[in-house]
Amino acid sequence: MAFASRHLLGLEGISAEELLYVVDTAESFKEISERDIKKVPALRGKTVVSLFYEASTRTRMSFEIAAKRLSADFVSLSASVSSASKGETLLDTARNIAAMRPDCLVVRHGAAGAAFFLAERLDCPIVNAGDGSHEHPTQALLDLLTIREHVGRLSNLKVAIIGDVLHSRVARSNLHALRTFGAEVRLVGPPTFLPPEARNWGHVCYNLAEGVRDVDVIIMLRIQRERQGLNFFPSVEEYARLFCLNRAALAGASPKVVVLHPGPINRGIEIASDVADGPYSVVMHQVTNGVAVRMAILFLLVNRAPIAAETEEAADMPRLRRSAG
Amino acid sequence: MAFASRHLLGLEGISAEELLYVVDTAESFKEISERDIKKVPALRGKTVVSLFYEASTRTRMSFEIAAKRLSADFVSLSASVSSASKGETLLDTARNIAAMRPDCLVVRHGAAGAAFFLAERLDCPIVNAGDGSHEHPTQALLDLLTIREHVGRLSNLKVAIIGDVLHSRVARSNLHALRTFGAEVRLVGPPTFLPPEARNWGHVCYNLAEGVRDVDVIIMLRIQRERQGLNFFPSVEEYARLFCLNRAALAGASPKVVVLHPGPINRGIEIASDVADGPYSVVMHQVTNGVAVRMAILFLLVNRAPIAAETEEAADMPRLRRSAG
Amino acid sequence: MAFASRHLLGLEGISAEELLYVVDTAESFKEISERDIKKVPALRGKTVVSLFYEASTRTRMSFEIAAKRLSADFVSLSASVSSASKGETLLDTARNIAAMRPDCLVVRHGAAGAAFFLAERLDCPIVNAGDGSHEHPTQALLDLLTIREHVGRLSNLKVAIIGDVLHSRVARSNLHALRTFGAEVRLVGPPTFLPPEARNWGHVCYNLAEGVRDVDVIIMLRIQRERQGLNFFPSVEEYARLFCLNRAALAGASPKVVVLHPGPINRGIEIASDVADGPYSVVMHQVTNGVAVRMAILFLLVNRAPIAAETEEAADMPRLRRSAG
Repeated sequence: MAFASRHLLGLEGISAEELLYVVDTAESFKEISERDIKKVPALRGKTVVSLFYEASTRTRMSFEIAAKRLSADFVSLSASVSSASKGETLLDTARNIAAMRPDCLVVRHGAAGAAFFLAERLDCPIVNAGDGSHEHPTQALLDLLTIREHVGRLSNLKVAIIGDVLHSRVARSNLHALRTFGAEVRLVGPPTFLPPEARNWGHVCYNLAEGVRDVDVIIMLRIQRERQGLNFFPSVEEYARLFCLNRAALAGASPKVVVLHPGPINRGIEIASDVADGPYSVVMHQVTNGVAVRMAILFLLVNRAPIAAETEEAADMPRLRRSAG
Repeated sequence: MAFASRHLLGLEGISAEELLYVVDTAESFKEISERDIKKVPALRGKTVVSLFYEASTRTRMSFEIAAKRLSADFVSLSASVSSASKGETLLDTARNIAAMRPDCLVVRHGAAGAAFFLAERLDCPIVNAGDGSHEHPTQALLDLLTIREHVGRLSNLKVAIIGDVLHSRVARSNLHALRTFGAEVRLVGPPTFLPPEARNWGHVCYNLAEGVRDVDVIIMLRIQRERQGLNFFPSVEEYARLFCLNRAALAGASPKVVVLHPGPINRGIEIASDVADGPYSVVMHQVTNGVAVRMAILFLLVNRAPIAAETEEAADMPRLRRSAG
Repeated sequence: MAFASRHLLGLEGISAEELLYVVDTAESFKEISERDIKKVPALRGKTVVSLFYEASTRTRMSFEIAAKRLSADFVSLSASVSSASKGETLLDTARNIAAMRPDCLVVRHGAAGAAFFLAERLDCPIVNAGDGSHEHPTQALLDLLTIREHVGRLSNLKVAIIGDVLHSRVARSNLHALRTFGAEVRLVGPPTFLPPEARNWGHVCYNLAEGVRDVDVIIMLRIQRERQGLNFFPSVEEYARLFCLNRAALAGASPKVVVLHPGPINRGIEIASDVADGPYSVVMHQVTNGVAVRMAILFLLVNRAPIAAETEEAADMPRLRRSAG
């Protein structure tokens, strides 16, 4: 088993075996970031380009650190200084980048399908770093790794996803991955965030206490105040009163529940500080795992040669374990 | 023959031999970007700094990728975050950078002569990456390489340059280079883009079909809507109707004509999609060649030691061919 | 003697021995930037992250060049593209960065104490690159190195600090360092820039000619027009007439006086061009020394292993001299 895709566009349709292969690879890369010399020559002489049409701190930085710890060169473009302001189309901008022979293009764009659109037209591996409300696959992969580390398994999970499911690409990617592993998923939030079709994705629940009852995993979503404004609930205060995850709300969950959040968090709105900084939170582990997952994805997409063949670098490279989820 | 200049400020006054030497060097560097390991240690331990006072995607990125493929460190400054906003003069900013001992400074500035001004005052090789409406020499050099590859020669060319000749630094640098090789140049556009002195630069032509008749090469210029607004023609639609290069307009050109454009393109304004994406377009080759030309320029300016003397690195370096144009 | 601190937050409370150790280390690193190959492998495989909440050209760039000349990877975040715009707290942003396992975090923030606040909460060495009006320790360290080079000593100095002492973190860090070496300090400027407590920091003087009489060193401060507006003096012209340092004003200073300025300079406001570009100015030496000081700080904080133990890299590393100030 290996990761067969040439691109990472989304987790829809990715098999459990492939997901596990990526998670295993990421787990084996984690240890590099804990070394004194945090660098392996795996992607030396390779060029990774990021093209971000939406502002981002951690995702762009996580890819940059991942690329550099693999010894790749990393070149970053952001829309604010790009030719987008000169009226160039996304495809023309991406074609230009591709003509400079990058080995991988990491794209974030506000339009669902942007990464898929480019993957069909360019001769270069594409990683989707978020496309509108569609998918954010590396986020869900790092969530998988974090869940497996802290719950001990990926099978037979009860998971609550809480918040703005309607607009969340994090929710969508996680739903694909969790359902592939047979999880029982509850979607929790106000009705405006849970459209009728949500019933096809999981059990819909409009009450926080009921939604988290007996769950092993809680995946919080961000209230993206900069995006949807207040059109979907009367006020931030009302949303917080009903759906802010605080210590009391966790009472009914599994005693070993873990709480994930993709960040940046809005303290006191969707998550209370006593949870964000408390013992159930694995938010910082998610960030650490994000670097490892992106190292794994860049490695798997760029360096398609079999690992056994890399003689010179083999000593420095972590051993890939192939484990069951 | 070699490239004698300490700086690359413009192509005016550069001899055919020097131009060919750069184009030959660039051609020899092209192959590095097609390797599995796209990196040679030619400029290891060197620092290349870019100082851009105008937004740019491809030019800054092309220099960055070129520098990194030569193993140089690349540090990027853009005016929006620079001391320009604190009232510092261009010279003081550049002097500060020079005091940090870069091996090369790549400058883009809105004022004609900015790079020349700095070259006279700083003890550091300067590359002009565009100075107002004056010159953009690396663009014209990559155009030369692209023309030679696709037409097979640089001598006895018939070339049409179409569009905003008045404001175009690309046109100016190309005019210097093409006339050095004895090309017959036609300048094509509305009279507002072709001032009286244009008659000294080439044959002036106000009609598109007539302008491209029998030419081997067409160099399109960008309509820089963000710069001159609509002061020079009644409307974008009227400009497009008269001067947009579409498949029909190419009928009278040489059957082997090649079409160049410095990008970013305005589809349907100065160039139609059936040309931009058609068989005559070499636009993507220009972008690929841009990296090679910038590698050559950085290499020639920074690494002035004779190549034969580089023993350890010689094996990795491409052989420099010295060919006739 | 060595540099014992885990962080560099300010120069208050740092002993003369420690300051000298840093200055000596920086002096030994200067030579690397004059080499043909400006790079040593001292911090290979280390990650240095800069997090700047205020715009900066030279400081960010100086740290970036310093890190790269030590072979560290450098990742830059600026507030304009960071999660600050999404409402994330400083601590949450910094915790996220820390979770990606950087070896050093360089922070600039508008709030006094920001770096100290993070140092108490994160498990990562912090360098304060400016916190509000509080401290800017690497600036004062490079001033020490520059003064020692050009005056020949750090003891028995007469120093005038001229300008906006009230708001200047450069003044504050220099005051701590200079007083540690027993300097006689005069603070010169209009009363609005010299609050009552300034009498505890040095001799207060409202007259420029009197302030510079017989001094060995003049440290100019920037008039930060973008910060305090015109609230502290009637007009820029009036400030310049009374406090702009020109050649005539230097008449009463020591004939060997050296003039420092942290940059960017406002020509004709706080400093005249005949001084800024004249023989007493050591401004460009400060910039060059800034890279060396930042190399020293990054090296001392990140690479805490004793230098003697670095066998493989020892040949490339400069010898550390331990001199008296």
